[in-house]
Amino acid sequence: MLEELKKKVYEANMLLPKYGLVTFTWGNVSAIDREKGLFVIKPSGVPYETMTADDMVVMDMEGNRVEGRCKPSSDTPTHLELYKAFSSIGGIVHTHSSYATSWAQAGRDIPCYGTTHADYIYGEVPCARCLDRDEIESAYEENTGRLIVSLFKERNKDPMAVPAVLCKNHGPFAWGKDADEAVHNAVVLEEVAKMAYRAEIINPRIMPAPSELQDKHYFRKHGANAYYGQ
Amino acid sequence: MLEELKKKVYEANMLLPKYGLVTFTWGNVSAIDREKGLFVIKPSGVPYETMTADDMVVMDMEGNRVEGRCKPSSDTPTHLELYKAFSSIGGIVHTHSSYATSWAQAGRDIPCYGTTHADYIYGEVPCARCLDRDEIESAYEENTGRLIVSLFKERNKDPMAVPAVLCKNHGPFAWGKDADEAVHNAVVLEEVAKMAYRAEIINPRIMPAPSELQDKHYFRKHGANAYYGQ
Amino acid sequence: MLEELKKKVYEANMLLPKYGLVTFTWGNVSAIDREKGLFVIKPSGVPYETMTADDMVVMDMEGNRVEGRCKPSSDTPTHLELYKAFSSIGGIVHTHSSYATSWAQAGRDIPCYGTTHADYIYGEVPCARCLDRDEIESAYEENTGRLIVSLFKERNKDPMAVPAVLCKNHGPFAWGKDADEAVHNAVVLEEVAKMAYRAEIINPRIMPAPSELQDKHYFRKHGANAYYGQ
Amino acid sequence: MLEELKKKVYEANMLLPKYGLVTFTWGNVSAIDREKGLFVIKPSGVPYETMTADDMVVMDMEGNRVEGRCKPSSDTPTHLELYKAFSSIGGIVHTHSSYATSWAQAGRDIPCYGTTHADYIYGEVPCARCLDRDEIESAYEENTGRLIVSLFKERNKDPMAVPAVLCKNHGPFAWGKDADEAVHNAVVLEEVAKMAYRAEIINPRIMPAPSELQDKHYFRKHGANAYYGQ
Repeated sequence: MLEELKKKVYEANMLLPKYGLVTFTWGNVSAIDREKGLFVIKPSGVPYETMTADDMVVMDMEGNRVEGRCKPSSDTPTHLELYKAFSSIGGIVHTHSSYATSWAQAGRDIPCYGTTHADYIYGEVPCARCLDRDEIESAYEENTGRLIVSLFKERNKDPMAVPAVLCKNHGPFAWGKDADEAVHNAVVLEEVAKMAYRAEIINPRIMPAPSELQDKHYFRKHGANAYYGQ
Repeated sequence: MLEELKKKVYEANMLLPKYGLVTFTWGNVSAIDREKGLFVIKPSGVPYETMTADDMVVMDMEGNRVEGRCKPSSDTPTHLELYKAFSSIGGIVHTHSSYATSWAQAGRDIPCYGTTHADYIYGEVPCARCLDRDEIESAYEENTGRLIVSLFKERNKDPMAVPAVLCKNHGPFAWGKDADEAVHNAVVLEEVAKMAYRAEIINPRIMPAPSELQDKHYFRKHGANAYYGQ
Repeated sequence: MLEELKKKVYEANMLLPKYGLVTFTWGNVSAIDREKGLFVIKPSGVPYETMTADDMVVMDMEGNRVEGRCKPSSDTPTHLELYKAFSSIGGIVHTHSSYATSWAQAGRDIPCYGTTHADYIYGEVPCARCLDRDEIESAYEENTGRLIVSLFKERNKDPMAVPAVLCKNHGPFAWGKDADEAVHNAVVLEEVAKMAYRAEIINPRIMPAPSELQDKHYFRKHGANAYYGQ
Repeated sequence: MLEELKKKVYEANMLLPKYGLVTFTWGNVSAIDREKGLFVIKPSGVPYETMTADDMVVMDMEGNRVEGRCKPSSDTPTHLELYKAFSSIGGIVHTHSSYATSWAQAGRDIPCYGTTHADYIYGEVPCARCLDRDEIESAYEENTGRLIVSLFKERNKDPMAVPAVLCKNHGPFAWGKDADEAVHNAVVLEEVAKMAYRAEIINPRIMPAPSELQDKHYFRKHGANAYYGQ
């Protein structure tokens, strides 16, 4: 069932240690088959060294395990909420990557300080507030997803133009049209988080890049007038 | 004698360079056989490159070398005190890992700023004061162990819920149910120390994560209601 | 056509991931054949893993593609402006290397704090202002090149003595007598950016190195009285 | 001539890239044969990748090249001054290692904040002032050595107990009883510089470790009562 998607999700998960985004099992990638209404996700707490494509878990859109001998990632309800609300995304990544998580712990948006950021992410990377006691104590992971969705609505953000978010006191989620692009965006987020951290130290009075430069770089790579790449 | 435990302690020691926790010989792992009342520890100052399982030293609970051609780690009396006082722990690690040691040199507890920390360590990582002149000049290593034990009593901390400590002006100790888990916790501590360092720079007015979030993550992974992993 | 130069440009591009200067495709190297009035540059958005020397693109000095099945780097007009204005340079590198880009995002010159810098770069690494809206919206990449050239004129800098520049909110360009030296200087720039960042943190009242020390080191390696090397 | 020493010096030089202490050719190791009154040093500006033991240069104590087809390191006169003044040292290393050079650029001593430092270096790592114009313009490298020697006299420091120094706006020198120990101390210096940098950020009111702790750790590893190692 969904053998090809399971293979892709497996391979995307294996990119996390390759790119230095995870320690131990602290990360997970999923991808969705929109036509079938099913998504595939990493199993919970399984080491990358011994994991195989067969360990991937198939879930339906009600959060039921449809196939797989392992329990799905404990963050599965968060993925599900994002898939339900963001209809254009095809893959999701959660990590505790070091710089992005530091910003999440600090509880701050990552401002767009330059073109590395603007090439991939339109405007700041938003940081969602910490969940309150009630939200934490019941359906914590589901509420995490709902909070991200409501934050994007409040700020009027398009999830395809802003493919990443920070959850305060927790860490980042990133996404994309498929599992590969989601991992790609998670790598970008970590680089962007690292350079913003250093840039603020070098110049404490730093301001975000002008909006016309952000537009230029974003639309050089995305949309009808893109001219980057082949 | 204790061939299997010696092998496990040797392998756990070899994880320290693998995870980037040690430079040269600056670290040691031990593990205890509670039934026999013996523990196995790395020899003092032996390079990781040439060390073998046979170099491991077997000690009794009075601090006597029971087997082994090498002298045990100079930190052996610290390990012994911890094994005596913390009856549930099975393995101990000492390193000079870079971020944790920086916090120890700074003489500060590591606050719990997020879920990476809360997943493994319940509340702040405590930092023990520096020993005084008398404590340093006689039985230094033993007094280091005693100080850790008394700090955990004072703060009413369960060593299984807080599997790490910093010693001011010195460095970290971590532990767990066996040598492997102790090394695992030493890696976690280093990651947590790194991200707390950066998070404070990103937001100088940062506050610890709310206690309900800390509880949620800790008990998601530990205790009767844990639901992380397989 | 220009097979040897294409090979050299290809190899110089492959040094970027080797030296840790690029993530994904975020960098490009070019080199010029002054006699033929042609330059060779990396194709746009092609991954380093699969790129070959045959993918290199040959451009003329009017910005026309003379040979090559791929589109040239989107930064090609910047390279062209630099080749036209800086007649002694033979190779150019653009990256988003982490520390240099952090300085660029911060919008600050990198002061010369020591001999590592002075050995290669005479005086501060200048940071060009951000382009204005008009400059961004038409011929952005060409205007980037022009701005660098006018900055060097304003500050009376010799591009062979100052082989690097930062573009505010964007990142660094470096150059040299050929592609190899350009990459070499890009590595130096990253090291210099890293150490200047840390030195300012260690001593917030730091001052640039005395001019006589800067002169000594620069002229120990460059010009008629150089005595470094074989 | 001195084939064995040349081999040792070559191998010690090759440890510099292994331990991440050098970029390109920015470092050199030498060692002395006190009986013969000759020392062996790395040639100037030769890449580590292609260097062989035969490239090492033999110098006498008047600074003459006695053997070797290559020119010696441009820092040779500094090494010579140190060998002449510090009669107990047998090997010297100069690098531009990243953290130690950052402290040198900042022009500050590295305080002893913990036992990692105290295990190897007794008290702070001193930072020599920048040379003045006259000292720079004539016999620069020789004057660098003389300044280090006079600094150690002024501060009453034993070069065997303090096996490292920073030169303001330049970088570190380290030494030891032979080339290997000198490299070992250069690695320690870099670690110590890194952790002191971070510790000051974590706690801006940090104080050096108490002298009794510094004594304890230094004399645990050095002198008649040492009990570390086999």
